[in-house]
Amino acid sequence: MARNTQVSADHNAPPITQILAQFVSTHPSRGWSDALDLEAHRTWMNWLGCAVGATQHEAADAALAAVQMLQPAPQASVLGRLEKVDMASAALINGITSHTFDFDDTHLKTIIHPAGPVASALLALAEHTGSSGREVIDALVLGIDVACRVGNAMYPDHYDRGWHITGSTGTLGAAAACARLLKLDVQKTAMALGIAASQPIGMREQFGTMTKPFHPGAAARAGLMSALLASQGYTASPKALEAPRGMMQTISTKNDWNEITGELGQRFEIAFNSYKPFACGIVIHPSIDACAQLRGQGVTPDQIESVELKVHSLVLELTGKKEPTDGLQAKFSVYHGCAAGLTFGRAAEEEFADSIVSRDDMVALRRKVVATVDDSIDEASADVTAVLKDGRRVHVFVEHAIGSLKKPMSNAQLEAKFHSLSDAILGQSQTSELIKACFALGQAANVSAMVALAKPRV
Amino acid sequence: MARNTQVSADHNAPPITQILAQFVSTHPSRGWSDALDLEAHRTWMNWLGCAVGATQHEAADAALAAVQMLQPAPQASVLGRLEKVDMASAALINGITSHTFDFDDTHLKTIIHPAGPVASALLALAEHTGSSGREVIDALVLGIDVACRVGNAMYPDHYDRGWHITGSTGTLGAAAACARLLKLDVQKTAMALGIAASQPIGMREQFGTMTKPFHPGAAARAGLMSALLASQGYTASPKALEAPRGMMQTISTKNDWNEITGELGQRFEIAFNSYKPFACGIVIHPSIDACAQLRGQGVTPDQIESVELKVHSLVLELTGKKEPTDGLQAKFSVYHGCAAGLTFGRAAEEEFADSIVSRDDMVALRRKVVATVDDSIDEASADVTAVLKDGRRVHVFVEHAIGSLKKPMSNAQLEAKFHSLSDAILGQSQTSELIKACFALGQAANVSAMVALAKPRV
Repeated sequence: MARNTQVSADHNAPPITQILAQFVSTHPSRGWSDALDLEAHRTWMNWLGCAVGATQHEAADAALAAVQMLQPAPQASVLGRLEKVDMASAALINGITSHTFDFDDTHLKTIIHPAGPVASALLALAEHTGSSGREVIDALVLGIDVACRVGNAMYPDHYDRGWHITGSTGTLGAAAACARLLKLDVQKTAMALGIAASQPIGMREQFGTMTKPFHPGAAARAGLMSALLASQGYTASPKALEAPRGMMQTISTKNDWNEITGELGQRFEIAFNSYKPFACGIVIHPSIDACAQLRGQGVTPDQIESVELKVHSLVLELTGKKEPTDGLQAKFSVYHGCAAGLTFGRAAEEEFADSIVSRDDMVALRRKVVATVDDSIDEASADVTAVLKDGRRVHVFVEHAIGSLKKPMSNAQLEAKFHSLSDAILGQSQTSELIKACFALGQAANVSAMVALAKPRV
Repeated sequence: MARNTQVSADHNAPPITQILAQFVSTHPSRGWSDALDLEAHRTWMNWLGCAVGATQHEAADAALAAVQMLQPAPQASVLGRLEKVDMASAALINGITSHTFDFDDTHLKTIIHPAGPVASALLALAEHTGSSGREVIDALVLGIDVACRVGNAMYPDHYDRGWHITGSTGTLGAAAACARLLKLDVQKTAMALGIAASQPIGMREQFGTMTKPFHPGAAARAGLMSALLASQGYTASPKALEAPRGMMQTISTKNDWNEITGELGQRFEIAFNSYKPFACGIVIHPSIDACAQLRGQGVTPDQIESVELKVHSLVLELTGKKEPTDGLQAKFSVYHGCAAGLTFGRAAEEEFADSIVSRDDMVALRRKVVATVDDSIDEASADVTAVLKDGRRVHVFVEHAIGSLKKPMSNAQLEAKFHSLSDAILGQSQTSELIKACFALGQAANVSAMVALAKPRV
């Protein structure tokens, strides 16, 4: 018990827990630019579409069945379904569905998917407590700022060590957001962060299983409960984040405190949030984008003799699966991505359906793609040439793919993505209304109308 | 995303997750000695007494108030109180109360307090599902084995790094125990362990706050939910514990797999569980024991001129507080421990009450204790000489304190401890009945009668 062998403990960290608590509890409502406020609405809307879209997935069914064993009170809604459960369980399940398709938002600097933990906790709490839409958006911006700043401080060491950084920082983000929504004072907000600090969630080994999306769900639940506990007087260390044996030094050997304190309240990390146009790993996106542009220029699959694809070595290392046999494998196949882009002009969740992946024309088109490595091409770029049967060569170079920070998805593109996820669940017209409600959340008296639109009509 | 900088990853670990799942789901009922089965009952009884004793603590009030915000179904009981809550919340709260006084069991090799996470999850689940007492005891032995073996493998690196090892391994122990109680097959048990593996809980920075006992409570809850999720088909990595980016390599750089696989099913870690006779850190116990022995030899406080105490340097380093002003401080004062031993012959929770700590006679007696460091004396020993006003010197040397593995508490001493915790809550005669029910748990048709005895009569 007297050993003190902790590696490179920093006993001089600034009071991060207190600084973040002060920020979260006192930053003015809408204390940021209009552009940033719009980004918060886009983050919210993208998150909600992903959650609705995956609501019939077997992971959602299994999680809901387990939660039903607790006979939960009907406090808050499961998005895209008719069931209501207690607010903590709603946070869990909506967090799971929002990440099930790996289609949610990405804070590119840390690979955190911040909305899953934060928005899932907020919506469940807001539905039960009647918070205004403005309060929800404020809490979303602040909660995401906490999660991503802590992520910035620990990344990449913490991620390389094996942590799924979305779940490990997400508990803090959810706790911060819920503390704000509950209007906790500085001290109680610090306690909420402190309780959350004992609950980092998620290992990367779980990637490819239902426990990957469980991470943001469990983080949402744990963060919400941390705020509820603090609201009732439960205590934690006021230095729980930064102390030598606090959360951050226990789970990361890199901790750059300046990433947390620098420009706090002026620079907001949600400004660096991005949205995936394609339902697969980001490294394939430039190739899909280029092929969709070829299709836009009139190239059709039946004209094609071959496709010459030049990409960074990382692309083939991570997604070089030439002959995928199902949808999950296809998400790791740049060849399928190209075939989807050329055939459909998009690669949303439905273009990764098993039935699409195994179609003869898709198999044939994938085989026409010849990929070569060219490390003079950036990881974020792709060089594609369609060689046509008539001898013509049509060339597209994508420097930054759609969805990147340099070329963000437009609102219209986000809406099209939302429809691709939600129309089958809620119908097209209700989906359109729901999208409008998301963009108008900041003006809504409460979240009831939006939640009602996110349920299928019986 | 392509970086692979994880330090010293072991890609050749044995399939620990599968091995433990096989063990937990197939080991025969009562597949151990009678002595071990008795130890399991002693562990259960000691855990339950601690939980009943702390049930009026403000930590229990705050946690219960937060849980009530979820409007839980009355599935399972809060020990020592009339409230019932859903089984996951009951696991949380009973786990909190069982560790609130720092008076629960200790697996000395790892400093894990194993019953908190495991028994708290089991009782809540058993109360709701109607499991037999035999099934509960079986699951207790197996769950504690999983938690302590994983602890053995990672200790001390994992603990030194900052983890509160009770909570970080406790989730696995609780998941294993609940999987056994639910009669999950090998594959689903592996999934339960896998889901739990993403949820290690607790940092040492929280010591001294309510979040310390939150750790076993939250571990109990998370382990129970992991088993419920697995029972409904939720999946995780089948290598979640041992893979390079699985739980153990992510949270510890030391992983001795042999500690998990060696003598599995033959050596049971619950055999190495110990129970505290005194409600404070183990390092003070030899001194208290020695002083209680002096009292037993007829030495009374009013006879005492001074007390010469010789101890290992670690004792004063950790518990050298000479003038404690409240009960919490007194738990870190070997001087108060000696005064309590001399005055009361014991140092249960009530001897650490603020009102006792501030009593004039206690203050005076503490000041008569002269402690000196002698590193030839083991940490587990104490050398005490009472110098009396009439010039006599009475000497006691304690090599192994009562409560250590070398000198375990007798059943009668455990019962006396239980009474000291429970009589004020449940009354003396009901407490006696409850103790009997604990010792007879292995023969009980279900846990109902025992649970009824653990509630105050209105």
